Amino acid sequence: MDNTAVEQRLSALDGWQRDAHDSQCIIKTYRFKNYYETMAFVNAAAWIAHRQDHHPDLVVGYRECTVSYTTHSAGGLTEKDFACAAKLDALFAL
Amino acid sequence: MDNTAVEQRLSALDGWQRDAHDSQCIIKTYRFKNYYETMAFVNAAAWIAHRQDHHPDLVVGYRECTVSYTTHSAGGLTEKDFACAAKLDALFAL
Repeated sequence: MDNTAVEQRLSALDGWQRDAHDSQCIIKTYRFKNYYETMAFVNAAAWIAHRQDHHPDLVVGYRECTVSYTTHSAGGLTEKDFACAAKLDALFAL
Repeated sequence: MDNTAVEQRLSALDGWQRDAHDSQCIIKTYRFKNYYETMAFVNAAAWIAHRQDHHPDLVVGYRECTVSYTTHSAGGLTEKDFACAAKLDALFAL
């Protein structure tokens, strides 16, 4: 996926950006009230990962979770990454 | 906690090491059969985090989870970090 396509898809999302350390990943940090809420989100994100058969890396802290999508099988970003990013935003807004 | 104390406590654990990027953290990567097993471990680790009121950072991939302990309130490593690291090893061995 070329830069223009990536920028276009990022602009359609809320708060997602390229990982500064890996331009072939998109990341977003979600913030929560406490550890219970954080872990509940992690499990809900895992539900989406299972259903979509597309598994982001998660960095889990006390009150935040950073989600990182890339498509390893394609060696970079694909439409699937952006589709799943949108699903996580939808999950967060439920 | 001085270097000698840290090294002594690490030597009593299995596979834990200082984070190369942050000497005030200890880390270990646990590996799993699949995403289901990984997420089950994440939840069990969260159980220990709740019970101990000491919350590691978790980096969650498809078949692995890297656990990182430090004591933010102390600005570095404490006995609590090593005690919780041992509990995670005990959890993994259950």
